[in-house]
Amino acid sequence: MELYLLGEDPRSDGTVVLRGAEARHISRVLRHRPGDRVFATDGRGTEFEIELTEVGPRLVSGRLLTKRLRPREPLCRLTLAQAIIKGDRLSSIVEGAAQLGVARLIPFHSKRTVAGLSQTRLERLRSVAAEAVKCSTGTVIPEVVEPVTLDRVAEMAPDFERSVVAYEEETESKGLKEVLDPKAGSVLLVVGPEGGFEPGEIRRLAASGVESFSMGPRRFKAETAGVVAAALVFHLVGDLGGTKGKRTSKKGGVSEAWQVLS
Amino acid sequence: MELYLLGEDPRSDGTVVLRGAEARHISRVLRHRPGDRVFATDGRGTEFEIELTEVGPRLVSGRLLTKRLRPREPLCRLTLAQAIIKGDRLSSIVEGAAQLGVARLIPFHSKRTVAGLSQTRLERLRSVAAEAVKCSTGTVIPEVVEPVTLDRVAEMAPDFERSVVAYEEETESKGLKEVLDPKAGSVLLVVGPEGGFEPGEIRRLAASGVESFSMGPRRFKAETAGVVAAALVFHLVGDLGGTKGKRTSKKGGVSEAWQVLS
Repeated sequence: MELYLLGEDPRSDGTVVLRGAEARHISRVLRHRPGDRVFATDGRGTEFEIELTEVGPRLVSGRLLTKRLRPREPLCRLTLAQAIIKGDRLSSIVEGAAQLGVARLIPFHSKRTVAGLSQTRLERLRSVAAEAVKCSTGTVIPEVVEPVTLDRVAEMAPDFERSVVAYEEETESKGLKEVLDPKAGSVLLVVGPEGGFEPGEIRRLAASGVESFSMGPRRFKAETAGVVAAALVFHLVGDLGGTKGKRTSKKGGVSEAWQVLS
Repeated sequence: MELYLLGEDPRSDGTVVLRGAEARHISRVLRHRPGDRVFATDGRGTEFEIELTEVGPRLVSGRLLTKRLRPREPLCRLTLAQAIIKGDRLSSIVEGAAQLGVARLIPFHSKRTVAGLSQTRLERLRSVAAEAVKCSTGTVIPEVVEPVTLDRVAEMAPDFERSVVAYEEETESKGLKEVLDPKAGSVLLVVGPEGGFEPGEIRRLAASGVESFSMGPRRFKAETAGVVAAALVFHLVGDLGGTKGKRTSKKGGVSEAWQVLS
């Protein structure tokens, strides 16, 4: 399926308008005609099925047929706190994370981070996230927040059902499945910079309840570590195919929590 | 730890020689001195601890102290058959896969592959694999074989304990953990091109025992899919941290099998 990103909300009469690159793609690349049906999202969790009424290279308009809420979003609300790394590699993490369905990205500074994050680069990361979500047919664009300190990340940890940090020096037998409850509805995942964390930083995180886990005996490039760790979290909770964690609405499961959160 | 790649085997008197980029790195970047100890691998599973005796920008020599066999290699021998995709994205998969510890990469053509794989690009992929393994402190450089057809991939499947294929159209509840035995010692993982597989291709694979699995409701870019799927395999068998699958040498476990294979 193709999924477009709406620049503006559907009007009250059910008219939907797409402009710019989306209009160009619909009209020129896929050569859609009035009467064709396409899908679009507002990037905030709603997917619209639209019947096209007018197709032009600059403006495409249509009529809203149906809407669905969060059709392909993970049950687990995952926040990835990622140490800032250089250049395109942070983009590559944001891209992978957004495809997987990470809800929020928190870039942070730590003792061994060497790169900064300019406003321009932050805006660029936000575009990367939007584009990646669209390609993945996701309907929620993850928020990429302003960079914070590791201390601030630690302070946020108690807001999550589980918080975990990938740590190279952790005992190998303490993997993600040893520290993550597969029923967790909200998870904070912390991933360090190229040089890893200093032991004092791990102690600081632990003091706020962030449990460290090992990703095995090998070392990963930071851009691989972030995406792989996020994938493992989603897989464990059942959001990457397979039987989901035993969440039931009776037990106050995540599907309910989501309605509150979103 | 830093791990260097030996261009030639240690001599029978225990002398080890490093040249080129490795010598430059040891002498110029890390400014090692005679007497320092470093680690190097032959890329075929052996790690050597070396005491440096002579340090120059073009030639570094040392004395072999100890050697270890496959210190950080996965128990599961994973072969990734990856549909050829365009440009740098195939490099990115090879890089991720090599870091994770994939043993062999088989690029293949399928109905929806649009890119070719020149000899130059294949050689480039081999260098990427070697570099990535070194960075990850792995000791076995995955073999990147000549491209084959999907039919050939299907023919190879019976050689593996388990063969699986990531398929977008598979029922969501049939995830990797539903089709992969966590004790499998050798796994063939098949990942398609951007446009996915045609149903006939999946039937062809299934006829050879390749089981399809879902990676959830979302769609991944091919470069993300390959790395994520490989990570999930390693995680399930216990090679990415955590308790390993219950392999025991009494039951003819994988650690023994490895000695035969390598």
